[in-house]
Amino acid sequence: MKKAIAECLGTFILVFFGTATAVLGGGMDGIGTTGIALAFGLTIIAAAYSIGTISGAHLNPAVSLGMWVNKRISTMDLIYYIVGQIIGGLIASLALLSILNASGRETTNLGQNGFGDFSAFGALTVEIILTFIFVLVIMTVTSAKKGNAKLAGIVIGLTLTMIHLVGIPLTGTSVNPARSLGPAIFAGGEALSQVWVFIVAPLIGGVLAALVSKYLLDTEE
Amino acid sequence: MKKAIAECLGTFILVFFGTATAVLGGGMDGIGTTGIALAFGLTIIAAAYSIGTISGAHLNPAVSLGMWVNKRISTMDLIYYIVGQIIGGLIASLALLSILNASGRETTNLGQNGFGDFSAFGALTVEIILTFIFVLVIMTVTSAKKGNAKLAGIVIGLTLTMIHLVGIPLTGTSVNPARSLGPAIFAGGEALSQVWVFIVAPLIGGVLAALVSKYLLDTEE
Amino acid sequence: MKKAIAECLGTFILVFFGTATAVLGGGMDGIGTTGIALAFGLTIIAAAYSIGTISGAHLNPAVSLGMWVNKRISTMDLIYYIVGQIIGGLIASLALLSILNASGRETTNLGQNGFGDFSAFGALTVEIILTFIFVLVIMTVTSAKKGNAKLAGIVIGLTLTMIHLVGIPLTGTSVNPARSLGPAIFAGGEALSQVWVFIVAPLIGGVLAALVSKYLLDTEE
Amino acid sequence: MKKAIAECLGTFILVFFGTATAVLGGGMDGIGTTGIALAFGLTIIAAAYSIGTISGAHLNPAVSLGMWVNKRISTMDLIYYIVGQIIGGLIASLALLSILNASGRETTNLGQNGFGDFSAFGALTVEIILTFIFVLVIMTVTSAKKGNAKLAGIVIGLTLTMIHLVGIPLTGTSVNPARSLGPAIFAGGEALSQVWVFIVAPLIGGVLAALVSKYLLDTEE
Repeated sequence: MKKAIAECLGTFILVFFGTATAVLGGGMDGIGTTGIALAFGLTIIAAAYSIGTISGAHLNPAVSLGMWVNKRISTMDLIYYIVGQIIGGLIASLALLSILNASGRETTNLGQNGFGDFSAFGALTVEIILTFIFVLVIMTVTSAKKGNAKLAGIVIGLTLTMIHLVGIPLTGTSVNPARSLGPAIFAGGEALSQVWVFIVAPLIGGVLAALVSKYLLDTEE
Repeated sequence: MKKAIAECLGTFILVFFGTATAVLGGGMDGIGTTGIALAFGLTIIAAAYSIGTISGAHLNPAVSLGMWVNKRISTMDLIYYIVGQIIGGLIASLALLSILNASGRETTNLGQNGFGDFSAFGALTVEIILTFIFVLVIMTVTSAKKGNAKLAGIVIGLTLTMIHLVGIPLTGTSVNPARSLGPAIFAGGEALSQVWVFIVAPLIGGVLAALVSKYLLDTEE
Repeated sequence: MKKAIAECLGTFILVFFGTATAVLGGGMDGIGTTGIALAFGLTIIAAAYSIGTISGAHLNPAVSLGMWVNKRISTMDLIYYIVGQIIGGLIASLALLSILNASGRETTNLGQNGFGDFSAFGALTVEIILTFIFVLVIMTVTSAKKGNAKLAGIVIGLTLTMIHLVGIPLTGTSVNPARSLGPAIFAGGEALSQVWVFIVAPLIGGVLAALVSKYLLDTEE
Repeated sequence: MKKAIAECLGTFILVFFGTATAVLGGGMDGIGTTGIALAFGLTIIAAAYSIGTISGAHLNPAVSLGMWVNKRISTMDLIYYIVGQIIGGLIASLALLSILNASGRETTNLGQNGFGDFSAFGALTVEIILTFIFVLVIMTVTSAKKGNAKLAGIVIGLTLTMIHLVGIPLTGTSVNPARSLGPAIFAGGEALSQVWVFIVAPLIGGVLAALVSKYLLDTEE
């Protein structure tokens, strides 16, 4: 139960600081894509070295699924983690919506993901590749055998920043169903009708990464 | 006494480099929100690995209060720390004011915090949440049991950068009474009349973080 | 064979995320030179802490050549590594080209390197110097005697960012034949006719770095 | 002798990559103050983990003077280091000048320091304070007793970035006589007539830092 609360709090950090930077910084001098990419990366660092001591700071159903495939968490934990992550993302979007309302800003942009110029197929492919790389780094740097426990949070955070630098112009970057679900539910419309892509693709990418991690990198555990 | 001097010097670094980047970089190409957020984060790194060896580099009454709640510093130290921090912040704002005067710049902007588009209640809520996350990371990464002493300064600094990316468009980001008091006193006016928010909210956020750290994360010590 | 696949995957990460950030971020608010330089640096971090556990994450024929000169890899490995790197770069450019096509963007810019305002001689000189510095840092920080295995990926990545900050306005920054070959082949034209510079210069810089590393820094191994 | 060559090469890295980013990135989208500040910081990281294994990577007469005051280097080494540093800075400015000429760019801006809107007294004061903070961090994080040898290069580099964020709008940021001398000699004019400030102030700041480091922070060694 503590783990579910930790994941909920950690995913709140990820989704709140990530999407709030994107939304509040829109039009401000100097945030732009680099600042948003940085914000998402830093959330991992903040969460990893705080609630990560309880739950490992997955903050992402695609990560938890990959961990479960390689038997690094139990089926029970998988469910607890994902529920905590989804609730954390929902609270984050609710908090951002409240701040936008309270400060008289527009509420149509909650940092939701979308196809942009793409077809669903194009967006699926991009998100699978991005999530695959992301989870591959996570599986390795946290593995008991070849990992680097002390630096893991920093390495994973910087990798997420890298992924956002490419993904923001394409889909806004999900690689994380819990990150996409909260904004989509409160934004509704196109974001909600497209959100399945950002649930399906990261889960596929996460499973692929777990398998490559196991058979190529020998970092199952 | 050495600890008070160390905190004074460290808080000078935080407030001087943070607010001076914000004020001097205003309108310059490329500083913007990301640069200011980076500057505040880097001050923690610079202070942690220098005067932090004496005092732990709290640099912030909200952090010291949280540490005191979890019995990690004595009541006497709490007073010494806070006095040192407030003086450091005041000297920093005085130094910035002198530089602005000496170089013929305007002196109305000293990097003070303010409500912006918010009500006092909105600003209080935001600052409580931001400080809560900030101090939660600090309490964990510096804990004897689950912490990471070597990387703590870097992790805390990057977390403060993350917090500024969201907080700058809202309140300018305080999360630290000593950071707000110096600029408010020398800027006067609205900044001074609103400064109570940036004293009360961080202290509440810090205490909340200490309690969650103790009961959820098991990182009291 | 596993090493060749690892190098292929790692070089894919380097070339794909580096060039895609440059191409997709063109004209977007906030990526610019700093964001592109950051992206290239972060690819090293992502690759080093994932596939680096298999192959050491050279991702660059100039690095592998330097390692071979100082007898840190065998001749057989050198060939496997370089083939893997070149294939990884080609797949990365193909992936970027597909994304540009699928999203209806222009496909003339694939992040290829070029002389810019320079003569071939000027570009050769700059690329030799930049690669020399880059490989010198790599040879030292990964050496058994004076290195820092845990931080190596971060140090090398940040060094590559530094090199891009200077090199982007001059040649686009290669310092890596595998990074230049993929984009040149799919972009064709001037990029392809100039690509020899970005093959020859990095290899010369890499060998020079290996020699200085051996005789000045005493970090042959 | 090896140490002098190492310092020469390291200071070349600092001055070349720092000033070349400032000069070549002028007017380019996205470098700006943050990018320049980042470049200077990253040069320390690149130098520390390469030639730093030979000489400790002072790269700066003010640092070497502080180290000598606290008896951490011999008088003979002090001379060798400073000569190496000055030569490294001169070669760096010559290299930048050659690149500007070879690519048909203007050669009036070599990244030289200057008073800007200040009096000599104002610039002296600012540079003393900035160097004091910089060398204080260096003396502590490299000390045998309270230091952090593995992270020192990263901490010092990030501190230099912080210092540039404030110093660039004021003096361009020297805190290092060897960084100022090269550009001043090749740029001539006002830069050369003002260069004494950027020699005197850093040396004073460095000595002050050594004393505070010894008596307050107890990190003489």
